[in-house]
Amino acid sequence: MNVMQAASAETPTAPHDARYLKNCWYAAWWSCDLPAGEIKARTILNQPLAFFRGNDGGARAIADRCSHRLAPLSMGRLLSNGHLRCCYHGLEFDNDGRCVVNPHTPGVAPTARLDIPSYPVVEKHGIVWVWLGEGKPDATRVPDYACFDGAQERHMSKRDYLRLEAETALVVDNLLDLSHIAFLHDGILGDSAKAEADIKVEHKDDGIIVSRFNADASIPGIFAEFWPDPPQLVDKETAIRWTAPSNLLNDTGVRVRGGDRMTGTGFYGAHILTPETDQTTHYFFAAVRWNVRTQGETDLRIQKNLNELRRFAFEQQDAPVIEAQQRRMNAPGAPKPLFLSIDAGPAQYRRILERMLRAEQEASDPG
Amino acid sequence: MNVMQAASAETPTAPHDARYLKNCWYAAWWSCDLPAGEIKARTILNQPLAFFRGNDGGARAIADRCSHRLAPLSMGRLLSNGHLRCCYHGLEFDNDGRCVVNPHTPGVAPTARLDIPSYPVVEKHGIVWVWLGEGKPDATRVPDYACFDGAQERHMSKRDYLRLEAETALVVDNLLDLSHIAFLHDGILGDSAKAEADIKVEHKDDGIIVSRFNADASIPGIFAEFWPDPPQLVDKETAIRWTAPSNLLNDTGVRVRGGDRMTGTGFYGAHILTPETDQTTHYFFAAVRWNVRTQGETDLRIQKNLNELRRFAFEQQDAPVIEAQQRRMNAPGAPKPLFLSIDAGPAQYRRILERMLRAEQEASDPG
Amino acid sequence: MNVMQAASAETPTAPHDARYLKNCWYAAWWSCDLPAGEIKARTILNQPLAFFRGNDGGARAIADRCSHRLAPLSMGRLLSNGHLRCCYHGLEFDNDGRCVVNPHTPGVAPTARLDIPSYPVVEKHGIVWVWLGEGKPDATRVPDYACFDGAQERHMSKRDYLRLEAETALVVDNLLDLSHIAFLHDGILGDSAKAEADIKVEHKDDGIIVSRFNADASIPGIFAEFWPDPPQLVDKETAIRWTAPSNLLNDTGVRVRGGDRMTGTGFYGAHILTPETDQTTHYFFAAVRWNVRTQGETDLRIQKNLNELRRFAFEQQDAPVIEAQQRRMNAPGAPKPLFLSIDAGPAQYRRILERMLRAEQEASDPG
Ligand code: FES
Ligand code: FES
Ligand code: FES
Repeated sequence: MNVMQAASAETPTAPHDARYLKNCWYAAWWSCDLPAGEIKARTILNQPLAFFRGNDGGARAIADRCSHRLAPLSMGRLLSNGHLRCCYHGLEFDNDGRCVVNPHTPGVAPTARLDIPSYPVVEKHGIVWVWLGEGKPDATRVPDYACFDGAQERHMSKRDYLRLEAETALVVDNLLDLSHIAFLHDGILGDSAKAEADIKVEHKDDGIIVSRFNADASIPGIFAEFWPDPPQLVDKETAIRWTAPSNLLNDTGVRVRGGDRMTGTGFYGAHILTPETDQTTHYFFAAVRWNVRTQGETDLRIQKNLNELRRFAFEQQDAPVIEAQQRRMNAPGAPKPLFLSIDAGPAQYRRILERMLRAEQEASDPG
Repeated sequence: MNVMQAASAETPTAPHDARYLKNCWYAAWWSCDLPAGEIKARTILNQPLAFFRGNDGGARAIADRCSHRLAPLSMGRLLSNGHLRCCYHGLEFDNDGRCVVNPHTPGVAPTARLDIPSYPVVEKHGIVWVWLGEGKPDATRVPDYACFDGAQERHMSKRDYLRLEAETALVVDNLLDLSHIAFLHDGILGDSAKAEADIKVEHKDDGIIVSRFNADASIPGIFAEFWPDPPQLVDKETAIRWTAPSNLLNDTGVRVRGGDRMTGTGFYGAHILTPETDQTTHYFFAAVRWNVRTQGETDLRIQKNLNELRRFAFEQQDAPVIEAQQRRMNAPGAPKPLFLSIDAGPAQYRRILERMLRAEQEASDPG
Repeated sequence: MNVMQAASAETPTAPHDARYLKNCWYAAWWSCDLPAGEIKARTILNQPLAFFRGNDGGARAIADRCSHRLAPLSMGRLLSNGHLRCCYHGLEFDNDGRCVVNPHTPGVAPTARLDIPSYPVVEKHGIVWVWLGEGKPDATRVPDYACFDGAQERHMSKRDYLRLEAETALVVDNLLDLSHIAFLHDGILGDSAKAEADIKVEHKDDGIIVSRFNADASIPGIFAEFWPDPPQLVDKETAIRWTAPSNLLNDTGVRVRGGDRMTGTGFYGAHILTPETDQTTHYFFAAVRWNVRTQGETDLRIQKNLNELRRFAFEQQDAPVIEAQQRRMNAPGAPKPLFLSIDAGPAQYRRILERMLRAEQEASDPG
């Protein structure tokens, strides 16, 4: 095969983008949204990627542009032999992005210049994770959502997805800040009329946990259904874990006063964020109940309620405010936001992430 | 209360924007479009503002972004005590933008850093005016639309509003140029087949008046209804007043030949313009008849006709041409417009405004 | 007449835009899409133009902005005396863009400063061509589509038009590259399962011809209808001619094995491209059959099929891929496309065009 303009063939390596942690796993899809036989496009950290399943069923990710004339590979198709064929001129690529067939030069092996960058992928906790960093990916560093492993479907809410027109940091702020719940989700997830206990922030591994404990509280609406015949007053705890760069797990529940966690019930809420572009965010969310005290029809009703409640709260309440916040921040002459005591969580995660970003950048620009 | 990043709290003061006169009143709303109990967003001179009525019923304007994390206050709500509560984390502000409650730090007065800029507002002639300038606002300088004061509703057209995708100057040009009426509004407000008398331009206070007088004219369609049993021929006069920066009042009528104004009838047409952004304009318009010679059903029919005629002329005829003009001016390599004799009005107002802008800028940048 | 700001009247001459060949004819309209009595707007090479027919029926082109305040002339109207009247203030222009009437200064001839640039136009082969270059246009250099002259309508497909959101060069690449047909138009115009013969590239005048000859092929679906009782196997030839800057003519047909062209049948497909802006393209297309072997109802059925087939192939198959390609090329950090052996046509036309552009630019910037 004859590459006519060899000199222009090098893929320019983008310089390290200091805004994003690169050496980490980013959620790309709920596993159930990446069925076999399809090639699906999704941009992550400004990079257009094509996702599909190899013949072994394993999820794969390659750059979503053909090395020839840059047609998106997500517009092509998966052949029965597992090759991806570009829709435009029919170049074929294997599951690792290697160009293996040029139909216009039969009998001649395609040059390696035609290979397409591929990216490490792991599938864990029902999520397809992609690694866009340098060096060897570390499979042990996949964020921990073991709460989903082996969960009964009836105890889970829908594995849901929203695309937000706002930078990822604003969504992390929103989630790590428990104080907004009483106001933005007044009457649904919180109650603006009730004083709340203080917020505690703890460091843990490469993350933080923001939590709040309320003793002797009346049982919130959402838990009344979870717990047939609950006590009059309960202890209530909410703890949200942030793991770098933008993976959150909320653990919220009620319990017998003074008792331990297993005397009550609650749920884990996963909030997994991946930057699409500098101003848009992929938002994956789902909940799973723990220490379930119900069964049968009640489980199904709770499941339906959780689906609707969460979709409503994030799509109709959080998203519009966060997106409006982004527009205000983008306006010329906008003042800087202020950080108050309620922002201890957001302030701390930003500091840790800042430090990790600097460390990564220094490691990548030696000398 | 604990402001964690105090250093970032200063609102940056935008440098004087030489395109806009700042020390003057801008129309923000028809009074009737700002009902009690609502917080309404409107951008003026590129600044997002929130408008509402205080507990005293008076109109107020503050920056439409919370000092905390910049959520728009127009997404919040007015409490019964008159406070504005931010939708996101519940900070409360009084009618002057002072932060008076932080619900997360009960018993501690919020720091003054959380206050939001507020802007002087006056309500006059049925219009809410806002002052975005420096120094003390001068309430005597509200543009004069006394023609509306005490007018009977049946003698007025709808207080109407359009948003134009064009800079304000192009709309002022349009209104100060009486010559376009015969062509752009041919058959509705003018007649392209008829020669018109010369245009006269007079200076008056900080404005100009462009006028045209036609003796012995047949009565134009729009006035035939105003005047049961009119004479065969009438004298016709149109005078449009411009007051800086972009407030116009048209006075158009017919009268007995050689007689004075009170022998005939006519109407005032208000055209009040406020820059939204550099390329968009708020356009407020309404008409009120003077020396009314009709009554009963006829008044109501005329009112309906005026509503429709004016809406049609501005929305379907002026707006598309002005917006197309703007697009042509924005195109790369576009030539400069030419000013002809018919543009005496536009040319003079631009000169006066230019001089006022320079004076204001010099006063604001001493030394 | 009084030009108040004479100094601002000069039309700035844009510097030579090195991306576009200027001294050549560009297709602007199918003749049938420019009926008498209408003024139609079309942007070509980033310049907004107004097209219309003079009283002699001849097509004309002038800048689509009034010299006065830049209102588009395409919003005005053609008077019965052949003048164009601007919709805004009624200036009238003759067919060459000369301002001939200012209705506001009766009896005074308008100044030449009010004239509008006009552009040479020729109408040939059923197409309106415009010349945006410097110097005297050369009517003999109109691209040759004589295949349409005198053709029976029933042997032609619709003179069709698409607007593509991609730069013109990508569309030329698409058309000069015969290899994509088997893949992108698999099952319609080509067959991905069949190996194809080699591509030949010849230079001819200021253009190239890319061709492919397949001996002893089975007759492709599209030709089965053209040829009642065809032989079992045929020779098949496709040749596409590129004429600078972006005019293509495809000639494709089948014939008796070893016989000459007139033993078979086929069609010419015109693909005429004109840059609208740097990222959008006007695409004119139509086909005409040669050596027609059918008649009556069959002709009409073939005509309908050709219309639908071509529209479908270009609108549903080519356009989405070319537009996606453009988006991928625009993305930050996008690699350069590679040129393979199948791109001999695209690579050569780009080289020739490059040379012509340089020559033109040198001639226009002496010294
Ligand atoms: S663009 Fe993919 S094969 Fe040509
Ligand atoms: S953004 Fe307004 S209270 Fe937080
Ligand atoms: S803009 Fe054309 S006549 Fe004024």
